[in-house]
Amino acid sequence: MNHDDWVRNELQELSKSLGFRYTSLEEIEKRLIRIRAGMKKQEIEALLVIQKMNFYYFSGTTQDGLLFIPLEGKPLLMIKRELERAKVESPLNEIVALRSIRDIPSLIQTHCGRLPNSLGLEMDVLPVKDYFKYQELFPSTRFMDASSILRETRKIKSAFEIDLIRKAGEIGKKVYEKAKKILKEGMTEIEFGGLLEAAAKRYGHEGLLRVRSLNYEAYTWHVLSGLTGGIVSQSDSPMGGLGLSPAFPVGASLKVMRAHEPILVDFGTCFHGYQADETRMFSIGKMEQKFIDAYNACKEIHDAVLEETRPGADCEAIFMKTLQLAEKLGYKDSYLGPPGLQTRFIAHGIGLELNELPFIAQEQSYPLEEGMTFAVEPKIVFPGEGSVGLENTVVVTKNGYEILTPVEQDIFQV
Amino acid sequence: MNHDDWVRNELQELSKSLGFRYTSLEEIEKRLIRIRAGMKKQEIEALLVIQKMNFYYFSGTTQDGLLFIPLEGKPLLMIKRELERAKVESPLNEIVALRSIRDIPSLIQTHCGRLPNSLGLEMDVLPVKDYFKYQELFPSTRFMDASSILRETRKIKSAFEIDLIRKAGEIGKKVYEKAKKILKEGMTEIEFGGLLEAAAKRYGHEGLLRVRSLNYEAYTWHVLSGLTGGIVSQSDSPMGGLGLSPAFPVGASLKVMRAHEPILVDFGTCFHGYQADETRMFSIGKMEQKFIDAYNACKEIHDAVLEETRPGADCEAIFMKTLQLAEKLGYKDSYLGPPGLQTRFIAHGIGLELNELPFIAQEQSYPLEEGMTFAVEPKIVFPGEGSVGLENTVVVTKNGYEILTPVEQDIFQV
Repeated sequence: MNHDDWVRNELQELSKSLGFRYTSLEEIEKRLIRIRAGMKKQEIEALLVIQKMNFYYFSGTTQDGLLFIPLEGKPLLMIKRELERAKVESPLNEIVALRSIRDIPSLIQTHCGRLPNSLGLEMDVLPVKDYFKYQELFPSTRFMDASSILRETRKIKSAFEIDLIRKAGEIGKKVYEKAKKILKEGMTEIEFGGLLEAAAKRYGHEGLLRVRSLNYEAYTWHVLSGLTGGIVSQSDSPMGGLGLSPAFPVGASLKVMRAHEPILVDFGTCFHGYQADETRMFSIGKMEQKFIDAYNACKEIHDAVLEETRPGADCEAIFMKTLQLAEKLGYKDSYLGPPGLQTRFIAHGIGLELNELPFIAQEQSYPLEEGMTFAVEPKIVFPGEGSVGLENTVVVTKNGYEILTPVEQDIFQV
Repeated sequence: MNHDDWVRNELQELSKSLGFRYTSLEEIEKRLIRIRAGMKKQEIEALLVIQKMNFYYFSGTTQDGLLFIPLEGKPLLMIKRELERAKVESPLNEIVALRSIRDIPSLIQTHCGRLPNSLGLEMDVLPVKDYFKYQELFPSTRFMDASSILRETRKIKSAFEIDLIRKAGEIGKKVYEKAKKILKEGMTEIEFGGLLEAAAKRYGHEGLLRVRSLNYEAYTWHVLSGLTGGIVSQSDSPMGGLGLSPAFPVGASLKVMRAHEPILVDFGTCFHGYQADETRMFSIGKMEQKFIDAYNACKEIHDAVLEETRPGADCEAIFMKTLQLAEKLGYKDSYLGPPGLQTRFIAHGIGLELNELPFIAQEQSYPLEEGMTFAVEPKIVFPGEGSVGLENTVVVTKNGYEILTPVEQDIFQV
């Protein structure tokens, strides 16, 4: 059979029967209005969107290609591989084959009648080598950094996006239900983490989490028990765990889990690219009282953040309040990490990537807005002993918030 | 307890007891000799190594930081997070705290007595924004692209590295043993893939595979059954599969696996950052004869590549021979993809990343060398029906090759 014909005639039906949801043209048009307001302000005539998550956000597909967004007129989707599949997945009307990077200027010329005087690029992630190539291809064009306006556009989620995060949260709930059933003394952290991930995938979890960064890798299997919970690693997280080797020194390890240890499960799930992030505590038999007390402090801080969560609340102010509360509760030297290694955020924006706006953090003074989604995660770390924490993903609503990760907020003792 | 004290006194013993292997100073010194030969040739006075896998290769750690490699004298390892852990993991002697990117020039000045006139950067992956920052920090330094010499240095593996790939291959063998036991009609592709990954992790598989690219994501759970095996997607692979959504349109899907379908399992494993990649075919009951015949053709092409594998053999010539052989066997229009979408490589170098040198491919005319490692993967694709393939990871030896993925080369019928 001819591949193109098969894709044109059968791919959509098969995909839909297996739960695929496509982004509508209406949804993308709303996003284009927002980004174009940013482009106008920054005097950018057009964008060349390359990075996979921005590309998906504005095209509905992650087939390999580039998206040209002019300030006015239709976007041009140029696809390297696979063209027919991109036509099924994207609601955009102008979709063409891209045989070589060198053809980009002529495709744009044909589409717009001229080349843009200024072109926005994703300079926060675009490799230098590619940048030099674009300079050669567009010798008369001024390049500008469009990273900020892309971040700003993506920070407010639509009902469609919030629903996908909610769906990721529902997968997470099933994972934690499974966790209660399978946790046993003598299992290693990584065995437990692997089984949780297998459960999540069965329900449609996409396996990879995404972070916007050259070196930061996101993974699902963050399971720390007892002393591994007290280990800080490379990541900007209160604790990183031991991991499996110097090449992967974070998350679950081959350490065996024992009775009475605090077992921290920080598990992100992903549905149609949208992520939900949550943390719960487990123990085999009763957890030591010290950790239960610390967990209750995390819960109090978590609730205090949500208490403040509404449009207009200042992110930095909320963070500073949590510092005061942690100190009042007696955890000044263990809140968000050990002394000297404490992180300076209590919540990170979440959506297609794990490090989106907003950050409820030091030096992040801006207001929360309706439609922002973030994961709030107070954690308390005791080096050599263990750590505890609680995390939920929430959306800012008109008058407050809604939790998108509907797992009970208890310590799960098995 | 104090975190730094705990790390200094206890981390190494705990890590070693759980199987961590550290890179020796001797190993790194050999690598430095090789990279410095490349630097000399290209007249680069020093390198600033930033990308995680290059950084690990020359430092033995993946803690967050940068590595300065002067043409002469000791490398300087600058660590953002976590310093004490980097000191445990890296055998280098000069390891300092990096509080801010702005401190890099003064740290180098202190270390070397002066700043370099030319500095090599990884321009194949370094973001433009970071590049501009380094230009500000080093106003009198000429920046050069060190991507090629880094790739060239890493293309020949040491005995230490080959042993880690071998270990990854042994994990893979256990995964395929497990696969034979758990495959059942009615399972979805992703359920099967998730369970295989859980099994792999239990034996120390690191979960994430790595590719050197802005947008290319590597994943372990490539399980395709029947018609999903005939679908091409974004990746430079003969077939991509359906995947789970437009945001992750590759690999295993929620499709249920049925009797007699060809089930392709392309599963990479990772141990201490080093990867082994392999593909085997499964079926529930007997696979249709058409696919068995095509598998036998893949086996013949696979064996023909290995027949040619020895130091001095030209990569492009080997690839062109496989085209002839595929045509002779009757698979001209299905070898390495459907017409118009056929890929142009039969093997990719493998190590810390899945797209290392060498490529046995069109327009890659250079000789194989002792110590190169690659995954050879002939595949045959029938759109709307399915695909078959065989893949092994091998190392080029003095007189030929050694297979590092010791799974039997049969179709596994359950």
